[in-house]
Amino acid sequence: MTSDTQRHELEPVAGNGLLHRRLFLTQGAAAGAALLTARAAGAAPLDVPASMKTPGVPPSAYGERSPHEARVQRIAQSAAPSLGTGSSRTPLESLEGVITPSSLHFERHHNGVPDLDPATHQVLIHGLVERPLLFSIDALSRYPLVSRIQFLECAGNSAGNNAPEPPQQSAGGIHGLLSCSDWTGVPLAVLLDEAGLKPEGRWILAEGADAAGMSRSVPIAKALDDAILALYQNGERLRPSNGYPVRLFLPGYEGNMNVKWLRRIKVTAGPTMTKDETSKYSDLGLDGRSKLFTFPMDVKSVITSPSGGQKMQGPGLYQISGVAWSGFGKVRRVDVSADGGKTWTQAALTEPVLSKSLVRFRSPWRWSGGPSVLMSRAVDESGAVQPTRAALIAARGTNYRYHYNAIQSWKVSEAGEIGNVYV
Amino acid sequence: MTSDTQRHELEPVAGNGLLHRRLFLTQGAAAGAALLTARAAGAAPLDVPASMKTPGVPPSAYGERSPHEARVQRIAQSAAPSLGTGSSRTPLESLEGVITPSSLHFERHHNGVPDLDPATHQVLIHGLVERPLLFSIDALSRYPLVSRIQFLECAGNSAGNNAPEPPQQSAGGIHGLLSCSDWTGVPLAVLLDEAGLKPEGRWILAEGADAAGMSRSVPIAKALDDAILALYQNGERLRPSNGYPVRLFLPGYEGNMNVKWLRRIKVTAGPTMTKDETSKYSDLGLDGRSKLFTFPMDVKSVITSPSGGQKMQGPGLYQISGVAWSGFGKVRRVDVSADGGKTWTQAALTEPVLSKSLVRFRSPWRWSGGPSVLMSRAVDESGAVQPTRAALIAARGTNYRYHYNAIQSWKVSEAGEIGNVYV
Repeated sequence: MTSDTQRHELEPVAGNGLLHRRLFLTQGAAAGAALLTARAAGAAPLDVPASMKTPGVPPSAYGERSPHEARVQRIAQSAAPSLGTGSSRTPLESLEGVITPSSLHFERHHNGVPDLDPATHQVLIHGLVERPLLFSIDALSRYPLVSRIQFLECAGNSAGNNAPEPPQQSAGGIHGLLSCSDWTGVPLAVLLDEAGLKPEGRWILAEGADAAGMSRSVPIAKALDDAILALYQNGERLRPSNGYPVRLFLPGYEGNMNVKWLRRIKVTAGPTMTKDETSKYSDLGLDGRSKLFTFPMDVKSVITSPSGGQKMQGPGLYQISGVAWSGFGKVRRVDVSADGGKTWTQAALTEPVLSKSLVRFRSPWRWSGGPSVLMSRAVDESGAVQPTRAALIAARGTNYRYHYNAIQSWKVSEAGEIGNVYV
Repeated sequence: MTSDTQRHELEPVAGNGLLHRRLFLTQGAAAGAALLTARAAGAAPLDVPASMKTPGVPPSAYGERSPHEARVQRIAQSAAPSLGTGSSRTPLESLEGVITPSSLHFERHHNGVPDLDPATHQVLIHGLVERPLLFSIDALSRYPLVSRIQFLECAGNSAGNNAPEPPQQSAGGIHGLLSCSDWTGVPLAVLLDEAGLKPEGRWILAEGADAAGMSRSVPIAKALDDAILALYQNGERLRPSNGYPVRLFLPGYEGNMNVKWLRRIKVTAGPTMTKDETSKYSDLGLDGRSKLFTFPMDVKSVITSPSGGQKMQGPGLYQISGVAWSGFGKVRRVDVSADGGKTWTQAALTEPVLSKSLVRFRSPWRWSGGPSVLMSRAVDESGAVQPTRAALIAARGTNYRYHYNAIQSWKVSEAGEIGNVYV
């Protein structure tokens, strides 16, 4: 039942075995594709397993994952951190879809995760406003809420690829300061409006109640656009490591600006020049000067399967799968290459493609068993194209510690081993 | 800075204080709306809390929620169940957005949750196929995956509202056999294609490896349309209570058909008439006859805030918030009423509105402090309208135990107490 169209879809569309993205969307295509990782069943009836002979466990109040999945964990920073500071990364290579389970959302904190009591925690809005206001968590929860599925990425994500030799880590080990959630909160515009924004108020300062006193300045335009005071993450209240009970959420902006454990918003005439935006989270260029206030995260993508540290299971058909995102809006397309960037073909994007969100891309690939280099390149709706590593480093050097968004290349050896490679 | 447009939006658009859905989408509207659940801040500087004086806790491998949120739990069935059978409900009234955290996804199992080992568990595809095939979980994971954000609802959800007196439970207690996840799995069409579907194969039988041997028949058209063998839920592998390591997922179809702990798919010429589709999950009508094979869940909605068991915090502005869904496709609109259905206005739907998914609707409401009855009524893209309870019961009686989709009414007393009421 393989039609001409389907046979056509089994022809490579780019070098080294890349097939058309619509292959598995056409009914009947699989038979010709010779997927066959299944094995033929014998004639004997199935065994009746023990699980069918004994009742299982009853319902529970708050479910847990299978103990067989315990190896899937956030990836801790390997170097010993200073007291309190630390991070952990989302194991992107073990996940599918776009929602990051909150237990595996990346963490980045500058002096540990505080334990805040929502019954007493408050948020102050003050500075250049008519009416300074104090909001309890209960009061905030009464305000109109909005919900959006959006990514959060640490400014320092992927910076390991600045090193002279490619770090041999997993996709999550290199790029896992990246997660995506269904965030719900109160538009900051509504709260500023209620406090009565004065015309000379052009920036805000957001400050956390953690022991780092994390503080960042945000232009008023962003505060009045899509900023929210987030109260919920993936349906339930924020997790402690993500700012419980309330954080600032600035869609598309670098992670640290999304101030967790938020205790105050001060409206100011200019940026406050806090320690967190001068001594760090500024970008040192080739001319020895630091750029301040580089807010949105650039267009980017990474193949999560097959990816570093995984092993191919012999020649045959595979599905390349990864995530793409942009702090400037929607991802418009993702191209993939299996020959180190010589030829490319377009991957399928999973609907819905949302603004400032992760999008899952997938592309069928027949691995011949020969050496291959897999790459993905995202383009966003602003027209920005994810750069090669060479182009990115030529433009800004390797002291530019943040906003690394170059194309990730994974080398597949004839033995089927997969590692990080600079092309 | 309140413009004429904004003043207009503060005028009620339906009885008993319902305001226009765009109210909070217009900048500057809040000031006129007199939200003011915040309190004026004094001139004294903020106290520096203990959390800012001591480092917090370090990163963790698999995060947990705040102990302050421990009261948010799945709602257990109150009657003592038979050995092994049971259910627990999603606490809809405590959640926001549309993603249900997997730990709070509803459960319904007929003989408990089995512990299956993914290293040994297999799925057999047999019956009217050219090549019976056995799939290990590793083999299945190599196949092309698709991801979709979709709801799952138990056929028996909301049936408590068939009782003569309205059950005084929370939104989740009544309607919480309903959840929504980012599901990822292999299209069943691809696997059937590989096994070689014979022309006389018109149905499939799906069987679980649990001690209930849960078994349902599904028409081949659905199996070849959007059915998947789900491996991932909200990014990570399925939870045990949701079928780990593999379940059938049939978008929009009643929950029990989405067979968990899937061990085989047998292609058959007709339905198998299993115990699970004859002795139950059939619908007893007024004529004393049972309808079999009523698959899709009908268009439906429920207001989750304010909702049963909650208490109003005095007169003033509130946001009505709830979820709507349909097994027949997208929700086209949701109307809300604050006067028991005498007048209605359209609620705002949160983008993206996805097929066979939950959509969050919201509507601003100024509660005067007087008695009110809140209702929501969803319409889907097929044109189906959520019926009143009276119309539903007139059409089919109260022995029809499944597919209850009538409008939920919440009564708000002058004291601000909220309860379930039949209108």
